[in-house]
Amino acid sequence: MAETKVRFGILGCANIARKVSRAMKLAPNCAITAIGSRSIEKASQFAAENEFPASAKVYGSYDAVLDDPDVEAVYIPLPTSLHLRWAVLAAEKKKHVLLEKPVALNVKELDTILEACESNGVQYMDATMWMHHPRTAKMREFLSDPQRFGQLKSVHSIFSYVGGPEFLKDDIRIKPDLDALGALGDTGWYCTRAILWANEYELPKTVTALPEPEYNEAGVILSCGALLRWTDGKTATFYCSFLTNLTMDITALGTNGYLCVHDFVIPFQENGAPFYEASNSRFANLAIGIEPVPSEHAIDTDLPQEALMVQVFANLVAGINEKGASPEKKWPTISRKTQLVIDAVMASIEKDFEPVEVVP
Amino acid sequence: MAETKVRFGILGCANIARKVSRAMKLAPNCAITAIGSRSIEKASQFAAENEFPASAKVYGSYDAVLDDPDVEAVYIPLPTSLHLRWAVLAAEKKKHVLLEKPVALNVKELDTILEACESNGVQYMDATMWMHHPRTAKMREFLSDPQRFGQLKSVHSIFSYVGGPEFLKDDIRIKPDLDALGALGDTGWYCTRAILWANEYELPKTVTALPEPEYNEAGVILSCGALLRWTDGKTATFYCSFLTNLTMDITALGTNGYLCVHDFVIPFQENGAPFYEASNSRFANLAIGIEPVPSEHAIDTDLPQEALMVQVFANLVAGINEKGASPEKKWPTISRKTQLVIDAVMASIEKDFEPVEVVP
Repeated sequence: MAETKVRFGILGCANIARKVSRAMKLAPNCAITAIGSRSIEKASQFAAENEFPASAKVYGSYDAVLDDPDVEAVYIPLPTSLHLRWAVLAAEKKKHVLLEKPVALNVKELDTILEACESNGVQYMDATMWMHHPRTAKMREFLSDPQRFGQLKSVHSIFSYVGGPEFLKDDIRIKPDLDALGALGDTGWYCTRAILWANEYELPKTVTALPEPEYNEAGVILSCGALLRWTDGKTATFYCSFLTNLTMDITALGTNGYLCVHDFVIPFQENGAPFYEASNSRFANLAIGIEPVPSEHAIDTDLPQEALMVQVFANLVAGINEKGASPEKKWPTISRKTQLVIDAVMASIEKDFEPVEVVP
Repeated sequence: MAETKVRFGILGCANIARKVSRAMKLAPNCAITAIGSRSIEKASQFAAENEFPASAKVYGSYDAVLDDPDVEAVYIPLPTSLHLRWAVLAAEKKKHVLLEKPVALNVKELDTILEACESNGVQYMDATMWMHHPRTAKMREFLSDPQRFGQLKSVHSIFSYVGGPEFLKDDIRIKPDLDALGALGDTGWYCTRAILWANEYELPKTVTALPEPEYNEAGVILSCGALLRWTDGKTATFYCSFLTNLTMDITALGTNGYLCVHDFVIPFQENGAPFYEASNSRFANLAIGIEPVPSEHAIDTDLPQEALMVQVFANLVAGINEKGASPEKKWPTISRKTQLVIDAVMASIEKDFEPVEVVP
């Protein structure tokens, strides 16, 4: 018997929705049921260009998607400043919410969204794709191994790409009224999540922004960094930017091990992705080499990580809608922690790079 | 005609002298002429174990090496607290000085050493081996390429290794009276040099130590980190430790390029070493990959980097002694800059992690 497919509506025709709608077609338990844009022509064109099924409905408003009783879940790739309104409205209409990142302008907004999801019994998940790659679970296994990795001491993460002149002029990610968090919300989101992930989602005690962020003329961050510190002495640093070459690194150091990945956000290859690990490395005799050298582990996947993401989300939705399960708390919890750290970086920047306490 | 060999004396039987004396045997222009230790037995045993030439003289004191008229240059791998005394004395006896790192306890001491070398017309060089690997020049070429790398924006460096229980109990590198700079002087030296190297030796404006360093019972640093910041907004971070798995990374981000190396201090292989670079990387269509992916460049070398180091040093010595050349200023200059940054990290730690200005 064919698996029941969760029926998705998509709000808006963002570029990233091309990738995620493809993922919905790849995932065995997802169906694209509707797309809405402020312009019905744009929505039709998007549906055609992305080869939506003939059955997919095309609407000239976001409201129409939310009012469609066939739609069970919505994917919201709108500019961040619109998330509060549309995610809350979606939840109130009992639509499960897959929310593009950055999920909100601050944790106050996010809390309103999460409360709406909780009180309406719908699943919330942010669209952080790499969480769902099987490599991520394999790397987590390594980090959790007391023999191979030991106690985590330090993490460094980078996500940057060169926006280019057109991006820096027109992209929503650099507009103060659309994505006021700029590079911090876009690329910094991934670094923050990576650091929290490596720390098993233990929140840092303090966050200190690194001087000096770069801004565009409108005051939106184009590059910045931060130092995170835990009470037990663990530290982490990250650097995120729209101004340096595409880089997607995590480096984690433990008392016994080392983990490194160079494409954590988007694997260089769709069907498999490597990470590098070393355990108990020692200098060779005369210190003319080391033993063992880091080894590469390639993790295959049949489905790309974004298809796995919508599949996981759809499974949770199906569990709630068909089996009366409760929404999975993990996803709102880690989303909120990520936002708390992002907020603390912003607060530290505003406080002239003073350390800011992270208050759960 | 055979190349003239520069005649080296070695002060002390440190473990690292095993590697460097092997290098002197590998380099075509070096000869091991003498070794001195406080114990003549220890010196004899060291000479035998490391297969010194029969002609090499063995002394029961450091003074005897400095007084030997056959010795043109000395390699000083003594504990850091002894560098001031023996490096100055060597210079006064007109011996050229190859000084193990950390070169001094602070820049005041180093300045005394450098002044002694300058006023006595002898060459000074610190024994930072990786500076001499041909890979380093190749990486520098990449970083200096405006098309391939562009403007440097951010550097991160890590050097750590697990000292282990015996090391943490007895090694000179954790004794306050011998190597008071601990992990900062030992592994942090390399990170600092790497960051300065990537920045073409432009000193940072400020240095801020990262909270919280780890210390042993005697108050010697076992792990720490720092943030360096330049006036044009460039930043760098490093992490150095005796408590996490052997890691030797540099990651540099430019407006057009990315450079990464995982074994910058000691190449995993003696006869060749890779680095990784990417230029003008873009997301592929649908952002399901990137183009181009970072590529590996392996740089072969006939001689290991430490042999190239003593060869370069011996060339400078021969130029001075035989051709009346002046000592090369580059090496004392970059050694002093490295020490200035190390001092600033220490000062920032003492000032409760406040930013400290680096004053040339």
